[in-house]
Amino acid sequence: MLSAEIIAIGSELLTPRFKDTNSFYLTEQLNSIGIPVVMKTIVGDDESYLEHAVRGSLDRTPILITIGGLGPTEDDVTRKVVARVLQRQLVLNDEIVARLQRRFKARGVEMPANNARQALVPTGADILENNQGTAPGLWISNERNHVILLPGPPSELKPMFEASCLPRLHEMAGGVALARCVFRTACLPESTLDARIAPIYTRYKNIETTLLAKPGQVDVRLTARGKNKEEAEKLVHELGDLIDHELDEFIFARSEESLEEVVGMYLVMKGATISVAESCTGGMVAQRLTSVPGSSRYFMSGVVC
Amino acid sequence: MLSAEIIAIGSELLTPRFKDTNSFYLTEQLNSIGIPVVMKTIVGDDESYLEHAVRGSLDRTPILITIGGLGPTEDDVTRKVVARVLQRQLVLNDEIVARLQRRFKARGVEMPANNARQALVPTGADILENNQGTAPGLWISNERNHVILLPGPPSELKPMFEASCLPRLHEMAGGVALARCVFRTACLPESTLDARIAPIYTRYKNIETTLLAKPGQVDVRLTARGKNKEEAEKLVHELGDLIDHELDEFIFARSEESLEEVVGMYLVMKGATISVAESCTGGMVAQRLTSVPGSSRYFMSGVVC
Repeated sequence: MLSAEIIAIGSELLTPRFKDTNSFYLTEQLNSIGIPVVMKTIVGDDESYLEHAVRGSLDRTPILITIGGLGPTEDDVTRKVVARVLQRQLVLNDEIVARLQRRFKARGVEMPANNARQALVPTGADILENNQGTAPGLWISNERNHVILLPGPPSELKPMFEASCLPRLHEMAGGVALARCVFRTACLPESTLDARIAPIYTRYKNIETTLLAKPGQVDVRLTARGKNKEEAEKLVHELGDLIDHELDEFIFARSEESLEEVVGMYLVMKGATISVAESCTGGMVAQRLTSVPGSSRYFMSGVVC
Repeated sequence: MLSAEIIAIGSELLTPRFKDTNSFYLTEQLNSIGIPVVMKTIVGDDESYLEHAVRGSLDRTPILITIGGLGPTEDDVTRKVVARVLQRQLVLNDEIVARLQRRFKARGVEMPANNARQALVPTGADILENNQGTAPGLWISNERNHVILLPGPPSELKPMFEASCLPRLHEMAGGVALARCVFRTACLPESTLDARIAPIYTRYKNIETTLLAKPGQVDVRLTARGKNKEEAEKLVHELGDLIDHELDEFIFARSEESLEEVVGMYLVMKGATISVAESCTGGMVAQRLTSVPGSSRYFMSGVVC
C-alpha cells in the first residue's frame, strides 16, 4: 500500500506556540484516498537538519510531501536541499521568471531580484501552478520516490494540492472511493449512545464508525470505502439508515451544521422569534445563538442574572 | 550548545484531528533553560518507523526526549525500540514491579500480568518516578547521547519532567538563568504599539521581546538571559520599566491575568457591581465576565438585544 510522510519546514514551527493546520489538512486529504501518513517531521530553516529529514524519509516511504521553505529569501532552503538529495541540478525556469515578472508588473512594482530564486527548478520536475502566490510547487519523481514540494501558506497550499496533487495521488492509490456521512446528536450520553448503535455498526467491517463527544453533543461519523463512488455510497447509506432509525429523535443534524444553526433555521421556517433568560450559563446561550450570521432576524433579547 | 529533539509516539497522533500539547510544553521548558528544539518527529505505534526516527535523532542531536508508548499493552514499543538501538538489555526491575503491585493493591485489584512490561528497564538506565500513573520514565545516557523516555498523559509527563529532568538539564546547559515579564495591553493596535516601543527594546540585544496580538489585546513579553537569576532579573526589570513607562495607561495587567479577571478585581476592590447591555457582542461580554470564578459577587445581570 502507498504511504506518505510529511515534513513541515520553518523555524517558527519549533516555537512553543505554533499551531499547525497544513499537516492536518493533508492527512485528512490523503486518508480520504486511502493513503495513510506514517511519519511527520518538523524542522527549522536549516539545511543540515532538513537534509537529514529528507534522506530519512526517502529511505522509508514512497511519497514525501514537504511544506514551506519555498520563499524568495536566503533562509528558504527546501528546493536546494531536495535537489541535492535527489542529485538533480537546479535550473532557472524562464517561464516561471516571466510569470513572476508579469505578476509583479500587474501590481505596478519591479520584481525584486530575490524572487528569481523561486524560478529555480530541479531538472525533470513537474511544476505545480500557484495562482495565489509567487512560489510554484514542484513534483519530482524517480524510480522509488515521489517528492512533492508545497508552499507554506494554507491559502496557497490547499488549492494547489487539490488541483495538481490529489487527482494524481488518487490514481496512484488505485482509485479508492470514499463516502462519508455524519449524524449530530444531543441528549444522549456517549456511552448510552454507543451501547445502542454498536450492535448495528460492528456488523459492517468495511465502514469506519467514529464517535466524537463534545459538550452537549455527540457526533457519529461513518466512512465507507469502495471500489467506486457508487459502491461506497451504497454502503454508507445502508448503515446510515439503520443508525438514523435507531437514534431518531436524538439527531439534530444530518450534516456539519451546529445546534445553533439548526435552531435558527427552525425559527426562521416557523417565523418565530426567541428571547433567552440565563443564569449559570452566564450569557453563553445568547452568545451561541447570536454567533449565527443573520440571527438578528429571530433573536430578540437576552437576560443574564 | 546543547540542543534537543522530540519524538512523539502514538498512532492517534497521525490522524487529522490530533491536538499536541506535550511538545509545546517541553519546547517552552527547554527554551527556558537555553536549550533549543531542533527537530520534532511524530510516529505511530510502529517499531520500524520508531527505530528509524530514534537512530536518526541519535546521529544528529545530543538530547532526545520521547513522549508516549510506555503503556502496558503490546502496541507500546518505546522501551523495546530504544533499548535495541542503544544496545542495552531490557531487565525486569523488581522494585518497579513491587511498586506497581502496591499501587494496584491499594485500589483493591490484582495487577494485570501486562503491567509487568512497565517494569522492564534497559541496563544502566535511571528511573524517573511517576507519582501520577503506572509507567515510570527512563533516562539513558552514553558517551554521546541522553535519551529521556516520558509517558504520554500530560498529567504524568509534566510533574515527572519538572521533578526529574529539568534540574538535571538545567545543570547540563550550564545553568543559564532566565527572567520573564509580560505586559497585557488594550486599545492600541499591534503596529502602533510596536512603533512606540521598538526604539526602546531593540537596544537590548540580550532580551527577547515578542508581541502577541489577540482580539482586543496585545501582549508584550520580555525574556532575558543571564549567568544567574539576579543578572537576568536586573536586565528584564530595566527594559520592563522603560516599556511600562511608555505604554502606561494602555497596560491592564502586568501578569498573566485576563481582562475580565482584572475588571472583576477592580469591582471587588471598589465594592461595585456591574450589569451589561449588549447588542453586536450578543452576550459575549456577559459570558466573559461570568466566566471568572466568583463573578456572582459583582455581576448582577445582562441584557442582549
